Amino acid sequence: MKITELGEFGLIDVLSGMVDEAKPEDKETAERRPLVLGIGDDAAAWRVDDSVQLATVDTLVQGIHFNLETTGWEDLGWKALAVNLSDIAAMGGVPRYALVSLSLPGQTEVEDVKALYRGMLALAKQSGVTIVGGNMSGAPAAVVSITVLGDTESKEKQMLTRSAARAGQKIAVTGHLGAAAAGLEMLAKGLSLDKEAADALKKAHLTPTPRIAEGRLMVQNGVRAAIDISDGLLADLRHICESSKVGARLEIESIPVHPAAKANFGEKALELALAGGEDYELLFTASAVVIEKVKAALACPVTIIGEITAVKAGEVILLDGQGNRLDPAARGWDHFAKNHS
Amino acid sequence: MKITELGEFGLIDVLSGMVDEAKPEDKETAERRPLVLGIGDDAAAWRVDDSVQLATVDTLVQGIHFNLETTGWEDLGWKALAVNLSDIAAMGGVPRYALVSLSLPGQTEVEDVKALYRGMLALAKQSGVTIVGGNMSGAPAAVVSITVLGDTESKEKQMLTRSAARAGQKIAVTGHLGAAAAGLEMLAKGLSLDKEAADALKKAHLTPTPRIAEGRLMVQNGVRAAIDISDGLLADLRHICESSKVGARLEIESIPVHPAAKANFGEKALELALAGGEDYELLFTASAVVIEKVKAALACPVTIIGEITAVKAGEVILLDGQGNRLDPAARGWDHFAKNHS
Repeated sequence: MKITELGEFGLIDVLSGMVDEAKPEDKETAERRPLVLGIGDDAAAWRVDDSVQLATVDTLVQGIHFNLETTGWEDLGWKALAVNLSDIAAMGGVPRYALVSLSLPGQTEVEDVKALYRGMLALAKQSGVTIVGGNMSGAPAAVVSITVLGDTESKEKQMLTRSAARAGQKIAVTGHLGAAAAGLEMLAKGLSLDKEAADALKKAHLTPTPRIAEGRLMVQNGVRAAIDISDGLLADLRHICESSKVGARLEIESIPVHPAAKANFGEKALELALAGGEDYELLFTASAVVIEKVKAALACPVTIIGEITAVKAGEVILLDGQGNRLDPAARGWDHFAKNHS
Repeated sequence: MKITELGEFGLIDVLSGMVDEAKPEDKETAERRPLVLGIGDDAAAWRVDDSVQLATVDTLVQGIHFNLETTGWEDLGWKALAVNLSDIAAMGGVPRYALVSLSLPGQTEVEDVKALYRGMLALAKQSGVTIVGGNMSGAPAAVVSITVLGDTESKEKQMLTRSAARAGQKIAVTGHLGAAAAGLEMLAKGLSLDKEAADALKKAHLTPTPRIAEGRLMVQNGVRAAIDISDGLLADLRHICESSKVGARLEIESIPVHPAAKANFGEKALELALAGGEDYELLFTASAVVIEKVKAALACPVTIIGEITAVKAGEVILLDGQGNRLDPAARGWDHFAKNHS
């Protein structure tokens, strides 16, 4: 079987199983540095002395995740780091160090690589992250792989995981959704929108700002379950439901679709918000009381969009404005075919 | 200018300079988690509470570092982890966790990816390393990027660095050199050697065993300067000399050329040992007394091959059996043109 047939998540399941079986029997590691979280959350986590260490890796591949016609090198550097910082944000952690592995065609211009580093360093500086090492090699296409290391700040060693959602909790999301996917569509199709909308959508797609401070404030205010929206709201909510063994009800009219996406993409904007992905907003679950505290603490919008149920583990149900169940496939939303078949 | 014109090390210099200038002014990180080593050693190192954390990343790219005609998937998995563990070994550290980023063409067989993981997990288990996370994506060619995290074991937080070599110290190396490059040449040219030699050379090229225990024993016995031989003996000795601001004299007749390389590649075997690379042996410097202690502690051969001088920082001089200076370029060794022009 080819890996495209099995799919990304299917393959991850197979490989995670192999990793679980092969765990080294190293008592020292097990006792002194207990693993808190392995494969299957936004970042890995283990205890070192008084803190919980976090580590995550993400890779952007030319022709798969970006192309150089619509993505400048400086933006690429920013984004490659941003997607990793977003994983640390989704744990409620503090990013500290980054390792950068660049694989580039030999004909790449030195100025372009410097631009890539400029973009990466701008976000690193803003986020208090130091680039401590890396690797450089040739490649047929550009591949930027970044590992970010961080830790949990709070003395209580609390963090956000995908597996802490509980039935009865509300589901909430930071910011607005759908803008990154709308920005990609705008750039790919060369759509010409009014400048303000174009700038907002382009920024959402190319230079997202990871919700690091927001993740930390969530932990401090009692949130325990979160994920960052990289695959898309629905897919990432499903990840939470699967890890937490709960179900979810999503009220589609509550979803905070980005105004610039709504104004320019009509009904399609909701589809982009549900399944477009790459929003890098935080999706979290908590009691209504905790969410009120989070709303008060965060500078960005926080919107309740549904609730966690005990109905069927891993199942996400969509409800329209009348409370009727909605079948995404029947709507002919092609993003669903791509991401969820 | 294209990056091939500037070269890997030139590009690393440019980017390191940018990183240095852009260091975040985050007092908490600087005070609580001081960076011990950044870009420019085998691994990055910083203090966390009572220990020194180590982190390193290495990437193998299809068509650049390996091809699937001569490298099986299982061996590829082993080697991709081995090159990283070797970097931790070169710090005298203990590897603990690995993150694996796989970028693969969609047409890759699931069985091949499982074989890759089998190889990786075999070495991980043997080395006490747990795979804690990773990333999976499509790509036009296979790219395997692994990050390994570890720490220094000794209470004194001592480790091996490239910058600790001092004039008057002897230069020594573990094991034998040239076998990996000979193995690559054998496989690439389809040479048919006797089975024992073929097996040894193939193993050296495809499934090297990182010198983890040896690195730890070096630290414990007082060694402070080391590097693993990945670029080649001469290039890596030059890395030590540049970082330590010292010179070196290498006696080429002392170099422990691998017997199977010597038997099958004649005079060329010495060239492979000097410049072939990928031996993943440890090159270190210390006083003669310390090296004697290391010899006694290690199960593998340890050979003194020269000494560190105060003559000209960064310069490595080769001496023949008569003590005469030898010019590698005059010998027409083509590996030098490739690696050292």
